[in-house]
Amino acid sequence: MLLAQQLHDLNAPLVAGHEANYHHLSEQLDQRSAASAAAVVAQLRQFQVAVPSWALGTGGTRFGRFPGGGEPRSLEEKIADVALLHQLNGSSNAISLHIPWDIPTDVAGAQQQLAAAGLRIDSMNSNTFQDQPGQAQTYKFGSLASTDAAVRAQAVQHNIECLEYGRQLGALVHTVWLADGSNFPGQQHFRGAYQRTQESLAAIYGALPPDWTLLVEYKPFEPNFYSMVIPDWGTSYALCQAMGPQAQVLVDLGHHLPNTNIEQIVGRLQHFGRLGGFHFNGSMYGDDDLTTGSIKPFQLFLIFNELVDSAQDATVHNPAVAYMIDASHNTKDPLEDLLQSTDNILTAYAKSLLVDRPALQAAQAANDAALAEDLLRDAFLTDVRPLVAEAYRQAGGALRPVAAYRQATHRAGLIAQRGRHALATGL
Amino acid sequence: MLLAQQLHDLNAPLVAGHEANYHHLSEQLDQRSAASAAAVVAQLRQFQVAVPSWALGTGGTRFGRFPGGGEPRSLEEKIADVALLHQLNGSSNAISLHIPWDIPTDVAGAQQQLAAAGLRIDSMNSNTFQDQPGQAQTYKFGSLASTDAAVRAQAVQHNIECLEYGRQLGALVHTVWLADGSNFPGQQHFRGAYQRTQESLAAIYGALPPDWTLLVEYKPFEPNFYSMVIPDWGTSYALCQAMGPQAQVLVDLGHHLPNTNIEQIVGRLQHFGRLGGFHFNGSMYGDDDLTTGSIKPFQLFLIFNELVDSAQDATVHNPAVAYMIDASHNTKDPLEDLLQSTDNILTAYAKSLLVDRPALQAAQAANDAALAEDLLRDAFLTDVRPLVAEAYRQAGGALRPVAAYRQATHRAGLIAQRGRHALATGL
Amino acid sequence: MLLAQQLHDLNAPLVAGHEANYHHLSEQLDQRSAASAAAVVAQLRQFQVAVPSWALGTGGTRFGRFPGGGEPRSLEEKIADVALLHQLNGSSNAISLHIPWDIPTDVAGAQQQLAAAGLRIDSMNSNTFQDQPGQAQTYKFGSLASTDAAVRAQAVQHNIECLEYGRQLGALVHTVWLADGSNFPGQQHFRGAYQRTQESLAAIYGALPPDWTLLVEYKPFEPNFYSMVIPDWGTSYALCQAMGPQAQVLVDLGHHLPNTNIEQIVGRLQHFGRLGGFHFNGSMYGDDDLTTGSIKPFQLFLIFNELVDSAQDATVHNPAVAYMIDASHNTKDPLEDLLQSTDNILTAYAKSLLVDRPALQAAQAANDAALAEDLLRDAFLTDVRPLVAEAYRQAGGALRPVAAYRQATHRAGLIAQRGRHALATGL
Amino acid sequence: MLLAQQLHDLNAPLVAGHEANYHHLSEQLDQRSAASAAAVVAQLRQFQVAVPSWALGTGGTRFGRFPGGGEPRSLEEKIADVALLHQLNGSSNAISLHIPWDIPTDVAGAQQQLAAAGLRIDSMNSNTFQDQPGQAQTYKFGSLASTDAAVRAQAVQHNIECLEYGRQLGALVHTVWLADGSNFPGQQHFRGAYQRTQESLAAIYGALPPDWTLLVEYKPFEPNFYSMVIPDWGTSYALCQAMGPQAQVLVDLGHHLPNTNIEQIVGRLQHFGRLGGFHFNGSMYGDDDLTTGSIKPFQLFLIFNELVDSAQDATVHNPAVAYMIDASHNTKDPLEDLLQSTDNILTAYAKSLLVDRPALQAAQAANDAALAEDLLRDAFLTDVRPLVAEAYRQAGGALRPVAAYRQATHRAGLIAQRGRHALATGL
Repeated sequence: MLLAQQLHDLNAPLVAGHEANYHHLSEQLDQRSAASAAAVVAQLRQFQVAVPSWALGTGGTRFGRFPGGGEPRSLEEKIADVALLHQLNGSSNAISLHIPWDIPTDVAGAQQQLAAAGLRIDSMNSNTFQDQPGQAQTYKFGSLASTDAAVRAQAVQHNIECLEYGRQLGALVHTVWLADGSNFPGQQHFRGAYQRTQESLAAIYGALPPDWTLLVEYKPFEPNFYSMVIPDWGTSYALCQAMGPQAQVLVDLGHHLPNTNIEQIVGRLQHFGRLGGFHFNGSMYGDDDLTTGSIKPFQLFLIFNELVDSAQDATVHNPAVAYMIDASHNTKDPLEDLLQSTDNILTAYAKSLLVDRPALQAAQAANDAALAEDLLRDAFLTDVRPLVAEAYRQAGGALRPVAAYRQATHRAGLIAQRGRHALATGL
Repeated sequence: MLLAQQLHDLNAPLVAGHEANYHHLSEQLDQRSAASAAAVVAQLRQFQVAVPSWALGTGGTRFGRFPGGGEPRSLEEKIADVALLHQLNGSSNAISLHIPWDIPTDVAGAQQQLAAAGLRIDSMNSNTFQDQPGQAQTYKFGSLASTDAAVRAQAVQHNIECLEYGRQLGALVHTVWLADGSNFPGQQHFRGAYQRTQESLAAIYGALPPDWTLLVEYKPFEPNFYSMVIPDWGTSYALCQAMGPQAQVLVDLGHHLPNTNIEQIVGRLQHFGRLGGFHFNGSMYGDDDLTTGSIKPFQLFLIFNELVDSAQDATVHNPAVAYMIDASHNTKDPLEDLLQSTDNILTAYAKSLLVDRPALQAAQAANDAALAEDLLRDAFLTDVRPLVAEAYRQAGGALRPVAAYRQATHRAGLIAQRGRHALATGL
Repeated sequence: MLLAQQLHDLNAPLVAGHEANYHHLSEQLDQRSAASAAAVVAQLRQFQVAVPSWALGTGGTRFGRFPGGGEPRSLEEKIADVALLHQLNGSSNAISLHIPWDIPTDVAGAQQQLAAAGLRIDSMNSNTFQDQPGQAQTYKFGSLASTDAAVRAQAVQHNIECLEYGRQLGALVHTVWLADGSNFPGQQHFRGAYQRTQESLAAIYGALPPDWTLLVEYKPFEPNFYSMVIPDWGTSYALCQAMGPQAQVLVDLGHHLPNTNIEQIVGRLQHFGRLGGFHFNGSMYGDDDLTTGSIKPFQLFLIFNELVDSAQDATVHNPAVAYMIDASHNTKDPLEDLLQSTDNILTAYAKSLLVDRPALQAAQAANDAALAEDLLRDAFLTDVRPLVAEAYRQAGGALRPVAAYRQATHRAGLIAQRGRHALATGL
Repeated sequence: MLLAQQLHDLNAPLVAGHEANYHHLSEQLDQRSAASAAAVVAQLRQFQVAVPSWALGTGGTRFGRFPGGGEPRSLEEKIADVALLHQLNGSSNAISLHIPWDIPTDVAGAQQQLAAAGLRIDSMNSNTFQDQPGQAQTYKFGSLASTDAAVRAQAVQHNIECLEYGRQLGALVHTVWLADGSNFPGQQHFRGAYQRTQESLAAIYGALPPDWTLLVEYKPFEPNFYSMVIPDWGTSYALCQAMGPQAQVLVDLGHHLPNTNIEQIVGRLQHFGRLGGFHFNGSMYGDDDLTTGSIKPFQLFLIFNELVDSAQDATVHNPAVAYMIDASHNTKDPLEDLLQSTDNILTAYAKSLLVDRPALQAAQAANDAALAEDLLRDAFLTDVRPLVAEAYRQAGGALRPVAAYRQATHRAGLIAQRGRHALATGL
């Protein structure tokens, strides 16, 4: 954490310029019908994106990993990192935990630390794609979909334990990402694998506290390269339907085949009332786990356009969506990357709040493609950075979080404190 | 149609060689546990693939079309073409009609002609992706999903008329392929378009005779290039669930994003009891509509492997699947192309019947990927051409249909009869 | 064309708002190092994008076409349409012709009409992917790559005729897009087809006037769906190297496989001094020919970033690039679509001119990925619409070209004059 | 290694069946014009595919690795594993080394061991995508393309050392796979990175012994996910042209964007005389590194069809191609996987040798797509397993290598000898 004075000093030279820009934009927006600057800023302030504990360290690929130093070595240090992010941007008020990497050893202490930083636990995440030391059964050939009943039982039990760890820390969401699948034609019986997965999920769902949500993620490939048991939204959706109303689909932006229209899937799931969670990241080829918005900012805007459109539509009965960044930071400082991602997310969100929806609906009704496109374009081309900066400021954060983080030379402090070769658990 | 004597003469020089090969393969298969040659041939003889009326003429792209001459100019001539195919291979006993291109003007005559050739009508297909002369409303901006109630009503009515035309000719299946979608972000309201589509389909479903099946096709792109209202199996599935038990999903092999595992979708839909129809074609980049099996013969085999696996599994409650070739013939003689496609389909089917399923299940249960793969490979590598040829022969057809068609110089006769510039309706 | 007074009246209510926005942005930019507003506007004014004659009518797919009315029926009417575009935006000063669709019948008249409107002929484009009535040889199986020497000779001769038509009208560029390829494995001998193509191109190149450029386009699929003779930039590049210095590669944004990094190809070709031409359009799945910038505006910006980077680098010896819009307008008014495309192009160009290149180079040298990305992002997020509008105004055009076109109800006039069912030649 | 008697005993029960099948196929082939069984077997026996040292252990993804036990822990044990493969199939007579993982500590001993097993060193492979302990410069931001001259010098020097290690063991090929690239727009200057790479390669090329070949691999993504410095064949080709005649392009089957026609690239490079090496593996989504031929056996056949076509064409002046399997074995026993891969490769090769090339050329010249396709299909559908088995037998190997390996319970022996947790170096 930075000292309040430090933050104030970092902002000081930027305030005048910020206010001028904010004022000019505010006037411009007042001349349009969609939303006032103040209204957008108020919405931005409410928007929170969770940080996963496993994204606080340097990521890598199967070809290697180049750690940057000062990575958090414990749950305590992970919470400290997220607390800093939240201090800087006021939009990172939650942390997602991964079991077994983040099994809390000092529950009361963690609770205190979270409360002090204004943080909460977002989602619990199980891990049945790796073997842990001393584990009785191997997940080499799957977990919830395994042909071996003992493996499935172990995987179900692990998920139920995640619920218990989460309950201790106040979590209300559990996420299942299933790596199960096959690398070769014939290796796995498709119908059998689906059926076993459905039954395993039913067992986990049966243990779900009544106020919790179970999120089912999908992914078309990796770590299996011929088939994944839950490859697409249709499969997640069918599994959720079989489970019940507390089960919801989770969309990870990097988990789609080339050229997928993701925003349409988002709208569809909301229409069904089945969109429960979101994993933000950037993707060009697959699950690249890059900075959110770094590759396809317009797609990110179109996705938010769907989220806002549904949120403003009383006929849509979709529950609150759990937002999380799920990225891997191979070449950037993880904390910078998370600040950039959050900034891009808020930018896309702010733009989508500027869309003139009544005009858009009229253009859609009239099939005026050129006009409808132009209404979206108008919002997208607007430079909303003053709105995002204002939201940061009102939350007591930094006008420019990444710059502030750099100027405070925070990483150097972490390296000094934790060591150059400190390694976080994670991917 | 060829004279019986003609067919006999075409086969005569091939019979001895065929019998030797068939005999050798038969002996080989007897040494394995999976299936005898005779059993496979019996299954092949029952397998029928419908021919769509619009695939009997030369196809094209938006860049041009190069007609080959002698194309059928009427429903009568189209039936005659399919009759020839069925005579040659015994596997093309049905024809799919496209309304308005194939509105029967002489129902009794058509019925007689069909009966004489041993043919039946497979599926009716509506066309709401083009405007017909004199049509009241335009489909330029959609049909069942249109924002305009009058357009939707016209499109629903057109589909209901298809049912009536089909009823006259004994059809029991109606297929809806919806070209509706959008070319630009913002053009179409995703949730609204889905809801309108669901309501339009409900109206058509309401008019469906109790012994009919309604098939809902999906396609990710073309003719719309930003979004399609029904882009994927998940959407078709959700729409079918909303309609009722007579609604089923139709899988067209060319209607998937790059790298999609289609065989898994096939297995999944069968597991749900929702696989109703199949459009066969070959695809490398999109809806290329090439000869079935010409690009990815192993994928075709794996798809049949799922179909056979489900058919042999008493726990699967999937209705009979309507098979059709849906290809476009831009550079080949359409009739040759259809004969080749059918041959490739039967070849893949025959191979899938050779899979040793108990051994495969055991390998899958033991997670022996190498062995499971090898069991599929064993079937795939087997040269089953003698089995397919035997099925043709037993049906009174040609041992080598394409060669027979060529030797009979059938196309020359069609050109002489119908003209070099005769153009079929279709794409 | 609109009357000057009409244009003035359309702009009048927008001028005050425009000037305020331009002034504010101008001040903001002065505080940065990259470029002043005036300098960017000056660059924008010089930038010209040609309009192809075939994009002035409604486009379609193989599934249908829905004409909008008032399409130009002759070269004269096509020039009139482009003249209007150029009047509105000052950035469409050239027209590309397609032979045989645009063979000039009155050369002097066309020259006069062009001069009066401040237009010139950009590129000539041959057509060997369709058969014209009365043509001796068919292109069904290819043209420059055909196995038939007579076909190749005809195709070469057609290209040489294009040069002559272009010479009459002052063109200096000839573009070859080759549809040749194959639909099936085995159909075409890859090495043979390449060799024949190289020889045919050499014959055309031999007839090229010394001040002309020959552009070689590439495309991975459509209208052939197994292989295209010139599928990728590597093939175009190798062919150009074989021809000589007047041959250059043409990049069409829609002609790439999924996930291709096009901006890198652009940079590479400039590094080789072999980037000769650009076809702008929007693409999500393939050669979708949508409005430029409608799907991937960030990619468009990154491409311009490469173009500007090379243009400002004295070590790059790439000739001037011929820019053209090559889109198809299936659902929008073609003239609106072209105005939107040009607007998006100028927007991307303006943003790329704002990039702080010395700072970017320093960040790249230091491998500071976060900072380098942020420098691009800073330019991309800037709302440059006042700059583009100012360029329009300085050129005597409309501050908002599409709105002006609509308010002037120009299309209604064209329909009244040319008819509701007037059809342009083209795709 | 197995005892000769052991191998004999494993083959004994299969010999009679094999001979009957071989005899029947042999007669069938004699009735065709293409090639006799004996001729094909002779060609198969000459075909050798190298095994990379890093493919002898269990592979993994960034999500985890599940070792199978008994992995080779030293160069000596790696050579022993390849010796066993070569004993079983007679087609794995070479091993590719990876530096620094395989730096020979006992050169004379390694030479002796290789000679005794009839093995040779195929290609040397450098590693500049990971940091080794004690390394002066980091490759985190690239190696040959680095902006830092010291990093480039270190990477060049490492490659030159590889040449020296290879020289000691008799290698004649050096392969450069460059992981350099960028994860974010702006991070890397495209033209600069290319230029630096070209210069670094020139330095390595300058140290290349006159009888060596330098292979330049390309890959579109992973481990970098926005751009790779050498993403496609065009880039490899241009770099080779800049270097000189000893530089050649290496094609890895998994290194292409979705839907790429790889066989055409193979034909093209041979036409240019620039195809130098091949990495075999199976791919569905990207660099999946699956068993060769497990996903797209028809594509593998079509690639061999190009190789054979060029080999039989006197006008093609392409040097000998270095073949290697480059796969990762995540779920199978690595040695089984390598035997399966080699079997699939030989199967595809055998089929391609059966193609009736004069007939194919005639069909291609006549643009008879259906016939040309059928000629390839005829070869592909032929069950060539007796030919491959005969090649194994003549080489003194096992009729069914995988089955023999399993029956000999070789892995159990390795585990007993090397330990259950022995881990090989590699990916």
